[in-house]
Amino acid sequence: MNQDYMGMALKLARNVVGQTSPNPPVGAVIVKDGRIVGMGAHLQAGERHAERVALDMAGTKAEGADLYVTLEPCSHTGKTSPCADAIIRAGIQRVYVAISDPNPLVAGKGMERLRAAGLEVEKDVCTDQAQKLYAPFFHFIRTKTPHVTMKTAMTIDGKIATSTGDSKWVTSEQARLDVHLLRHTQDAILVGVQTILHDDPLLTTRLPRGGKHPIRVILDTWLRTPIDSQVIQNNAAPTWIFCGNEAEYLREQLLQKPHVRIIRMPKNQLDIEEILLRLGSDGVMTLLVEGGAAVNASFIRARAVQRVICYMAPKLLGGSGSLTPVGGTDPEIMGEAFPLIFESVEMIGPDIKIIALPKERD
Amino acid sequence: MNQDYMGMALKLARNVVGQTSPNPPVGAVIVKDGRIVGMGAHLQAGERHAERVALDMAGTKAEGADLYVTLEPCSHTGKTSPCADAIIRAGIQRVYVAISDPNPLVAGKGMERLRAAGLEVEKDVCTDQAQKLYAPFFHFIRTKTPHVTMKTAMTIDGKIATSTGDSKWVTSEQARLDVHLLRHTQDAILVGVQTILHDDPLLTTRLPRGGKHPIRVILDTWLRTPIDSQVIQNNAAPTWIFCGNEAEYLREQLLQKPHVRIIRMPKNQLDIEEILLRLGSDGVMTLLVEGGAAVNASFIRARAVQRVICYMAPKLLGGSGSLTPVGGTDPEIMGEAFPLIFESVEMIGPDIKIIALPKERD
Repeated sequence: MNQDYMGMALKLARNVVGQTSPNPPVGAVIVKDGRIVGMGAHLQAGERHAERVALDMAGTKAEGADLYVTLEPCSHTGKTSPCADAIIRAGIQRVYVAISDPNPLVAGKGMERLRAAGLEVEKDVCTDQAQKLYAPFFHFIRTKTPHVTMKTAMTIDGKIATSTGDSKWVTSEQARLDVHLLRHTQDAILVGVQTILHDDPLLTTRLPRGGKHPIRVILDTWLRTPIDSQVIQNNAAPTWIFCGNEAEYLREQLLQKPHVRIIRMPKNQLDIEEILLRLGSDGVMTLLVEGGAAVNASFIRARAVQRVICYMAPKLLGGSGSLTPVGGTDPEIMGEAFPLIFESVEMIGPDIKIIALPKERD
Repeated sequence: MNQDYMGMALKLARNVVGQTSPNPPVGAVIVKDGRIVGMGAHLQAGERHAERVALDMAGTKAEGADLYVTLEPCSHTGKTSPCADAIIRAGIQRVYVAISDPNPLVAGKGMERLRAAGLEVEKDVCTDQAQKLYAPFFHFIRTKTPHVTMKTAMTIDGKIATSTGDSKWVTSEQARLDVHLLRHTQDAILVGVQTILHDDPLLTTRLPRGGKHPIRVILDTWLRTPIDSQVIQNNAAPTWIFCGNEAEYLREQLLQKPHVRIIRMPKNQLDIEEILLRLGSDGVMTLLVEGGAAVNASFIRARAVQRVICYMAPKLLGGSGSLTPVGGTDPEIMGEAFPLIFESVEMIGPDIKIIALPKERD
């Protein structure tokens, strides 16, 4: 066993984060006599799994070779036939797995089938890295709701905009580019209608190399999204608007467009948990919340945040009426704060990027 | 020349930061034939300068030796006689200086006198480290006002307390210990009377090893500081209260105590620049502002902050009425923010400590 090969497989998987949903990103490397004879990643749901890509490349060289794969090979027939069978047929001798698949359809069965066919199987190779890579997927499999990342951009004194709402720009061009890289990896991006009314954002991924646009999700109880807003006029990505049951049907008709979907909720109060279940059932595995203070607060109140990414700019705004990243109901004591742990801190150009995770992991 | 010896001298100087005001912290190392024959630091105003401590230790071994000193030796007679003369008399052959003394009484004259006496003098050894060490002293010499550090402790969403003012605790025990280390290095600590009324803090340095207490400075226009508050009842450190010219004289009399000093300003509106000049003229070289949102805002409005230290705790409070570190008048556009650059970011226990400096250095 050589951890370097698993490192390569993990890199292959990281390259495709964001384009495989609702499947996980997976990478595979096949090694024979110290040479790589096949490698690949799963590119998109419905297409070949990573193991297949690598096996197809290896051809007859797979006979007696070692396979490194980042996630347990599947043993069930989904859109493609079971990878475990293909691995056995190809004559692979040893299989190294970074982490088991918690999907109840797989969950150890893939490895069992390989062992039953006489292959050597070793799991938990580079588990820490794999756990980090698969945190969103595992969350999605377990809860059937998207893994939520809350992204904020604030000054050193915790302000996201002036009292008049001016926020152009808090952070540097480099940090804003980093946000577009983040959007590229996410299935959907969510804002409140206030953000649409105030900033009229496009909410697409704008990277020099292109990039995948997330589904644009708008929380808009009364369907106040303007017809001439960019999310309605621009069809580069789907726009899903969640509204309450009392929103006017006339507004709903006015907003009809091929890329626009209006999702009317059973109550007039938009419930975060219900919205997340709905998104999950539609295959949204990862959600980026770029809300203002009210939307962010509703996600925190629902304890529905799995990651916080805070970009901090080296400037001090002040102003007792300046806007802050999370608003909502006032807690009485500091002890009511949502506990996190800092996962990483790095410089992005002149700014700081801080990643925090919930202290009690779900 | 050996930079390691200057590194030692700088370390000696750093050890005494906070206890030499209004003199700068200085360290000196004397080296002869590859051995250290004398070393020392200036411990307190009125006591021997670092060069003298090292020379006294070296005795006759100073003859023909090299002296490494972190700041240009003085050439004028202050509370002690000129160090330049003592260095010449002791027979030192070469003098390495980290940085020139901007004090107009010295400013190159110290080195001139040494050169005139035939000694070799080299300056700008480890200048970067020396500039960092002497930033507060240089600011004080140039402006005659204290070097101001603004310290805040906030959550990842920029909150310093709940709407009811509860802030116990935002940060961890480790971060709070770090604040006490910071207090130890500062000549004075400043808060607004609101902080006294709300938290009744002691404002002393509490370290396991002891530590030096800063002068407690309170901005209190109407002399509302309660007689039974800790800063009045506890005499571990001086308490200086700045009040306006309309504050009641009866209150002033009630607050009389040996350690309490009431400084009545000519107007009833407390002016930050005037207060800083007053503190500077009283020898306060460094000031730690631990104000609430209003006091912090008044320092920012006066552009009277030379360093921002922000402790960030891994928790998310929320609350549209929660308190933030800097309040004051609302800027209209983000472009009005006070520009900084991040100097360092480090973990202190579970928290993050961020140091930022003004972008346009004064």
